[in-house]
Amino acid sequence: MRLVTYERAGVVAPGALLPGGDVLDLAEVLDDGGAPARDHDLTALLAAGALPRARALVEAAEAALAAGVAAGAGSVGAVHPIAEVRLLAPVRPGKLLCIGYNYRGHEADGQVADPEFPDVFVKTANTVVGPQDAVVVPRASGNVDYEAEVGIVVGSRCHEVDEAEALDHVAGYTIVNDVSARDWQGRTSQWALGKSFDTFAPLGPALVTTDEVGDPHALEVTLRHNGRLTVSSSTARMVFSMAFLVSYLSQVMTLEPGDVIATGTPQKLPEALAAPAPMRPGDVVEITVSRLGTLRTAVVAPSHPDPSGAARAGRPR
Amino acid sequence: MRLVTYERAGVVAPGALLPGGDVLDLAEVLDDGGAPARDHDLTALLAAGALPRARALVEAAEAALAAGVAAGAGSVGAVHPIAEVRLLAPVRPGKLLCIGYNYRGHEADGQVADPEFPDVFVKTANTVVGPQDAVVVPRASGNVDYEAEVGIVVGSRCHEVDEAEALDHVAGYTIVNDVSARDWQGRTSQWALGKSFDTFAPLGPALVTTDEVGDPHALEVTLRHNGRLTVSSSTARMVFSMAFLVSYLSQVMTLEPGDVIATGTPQKLPEALAAPAPMRPGDVVEITVSRLGTLRTAVVAPSHPDPSGAARAGRPR
Repeated sequence: MRLVTYERAGVVAPGALLPGGDVLDLAEVLDDGGAPARDHDLTALLAAGALPRARALVEAAEAALAAGVAAGAGSVGAVHPIAEVRLLAPVRPGKLLCIGYNYRGHEADGQVADPEFPDVFVKTANTVVGPQDAVVVPRASGNVDYEAEVGIVVGSRCHEVDEAEALDHVAGYTIVNDVSARDWQGRTSQWALGKSFDTFAPLGPALVTTDEVGDPHALEVTLRHNGRLTVSSSTARMVFSMAFLVSYLSQVMTLEPGDVIATGTPQKLPEALAAPAPMRPGDVVEITVSRLGTLRTAVVAPSHPDPSGAARAGRPR
Repeated sequence: MRLVTYERAGVVAPGALLPGGDVLDLAEVLDDGGAPARDHDLTALLAAGALPRARALVEAAEAALAAGVAAGAGSVGAVHPIAEVRLLAPVRPGKLLCIGYNYRGHEADGQVADPEFPDVFVKTANTVVGPQDAVVVPRASGNVDYEAEVGIVVGSRCHEVDEAEALDHVAGYTIVNDVSARDWQGRTSQWALGKSFDTFAPLGPALVTTDEVGDPHALEVTLRHNGRLTVSSSTARMVFSMAFLVSYLSQVMTLEPGDVIATGTPQKLPEALAAPAPMRPGDVVEITVSRLGTLRTAVVAPSHPDPSGAARAGRPR
């Protein structure tokens, strides 16, 4: 299944992308009457353990539609043309955990051997935006960069889970652009601020369930910046496997439905490394991962005036 | 005001600590009928901009109680003896941001001059526990340490706020124990995992509002580990001021009500540095900050058996 969170006429709901591209509404799977609107989404569906119910609904709808039944009739719920909805980030991660240096080939960053342990940092909640949202280049940074990553989406709560059982707690995968202000990232020992500007984590377009992804270590990962191919690799080159990362992180923290683990970016292609090009307003960054689709993100300038009256460099005093 | 989030008979609510130590219920300030129980707390009160209404209620109750009016009568709402409630973390921070090396005197850690920029890292949501909860020493770490910190509690949304206006967006202050697994923290360049084990961020006991704190840079900070004084300093020794930190972080991210900025720990006393003592089950760690009270935390072992059947060192493969 290709699951989404979408907004239509001000209402947020979980949905599934049908083969033709339309969105099947899955709100009835939640069956939660009184909850506030903001919780009627895919994260709530995962937290309710309702993935099997969603699957039954999607399969029945696809079978009925294939047999010529009209949307909204019989076993088919509400179906919306994709152009009439706004896709939001598929999940609202309570934790957005990111792995550094997890692809072989980071020699240009000084990596000479596989790291012994995953290097983990956190992006804060304000970073998350959806597949139809833009990244805002902040006034405070002059060097905003992209990273093309596969995100593991946690499907059920787990703590201290073995590697062999780890993927049982994964609902599926999505694409994450780990946008990074390199000037801020390099200022101090910790990268968190450079990684955590508002809008710095486009997620989507969909959560693709594990069954539909198959082997998560056989996915091609490419990125085009204004059409120019600057990243081209495969999840086969990852140092720490998806299962290992879930198990490892679960030794530290209880993972919850909707948590996302961004599994690291491949190194850029040599020609891109040789001619660095920061993200600028007007740019488009497209990350394509086989089976996961394409996350296409526009880059814009801040929409509001600088409240301090002058652009800041973010320097103390 | 000394504001809390408390639980009583399964119901969570915001409250205020009265001079005698009892808890004045502030649920009526929220006046939000249909919201789910988990949102009836101090974070919701801050997000609703209801601090002035809370203040009016507390002042009326204190005046009436001083005049001999009985609790529950007239202008006094429900009052609960402190022993009949359970204090939770005063807020549920959407972002728990932490500052490293923010006190002068970290020479033992290699610090020779004031840092140019604040070094910022993030603790994940699973770390937050309340003032009556324990820290669990995880199986995966053999070196769990404490840090005694003043936490800034954001009171209203802000982005790109000037230093001069920054404290207008602060509701008050609380105490944070930035518990850290030093072995995990030192494994990789990024500290996030060592800082983010479940229960590694006791918060409380109360959110003390800015008016009651006065000058936030005149607070004594002490820590006792099993009664032994190991930290003794003052917020006067901070490198980056509270106002500066709020302004600086707001250039990166939109700060939201309930977000907490843990402003760093003072260096340990020389005698504590000379004889390091990790936190162990059975220990008690007490952090006292003038005007903020004492955050007293018990240390325990994991309550459940190791699911993998053997203690793990958290090592890959």
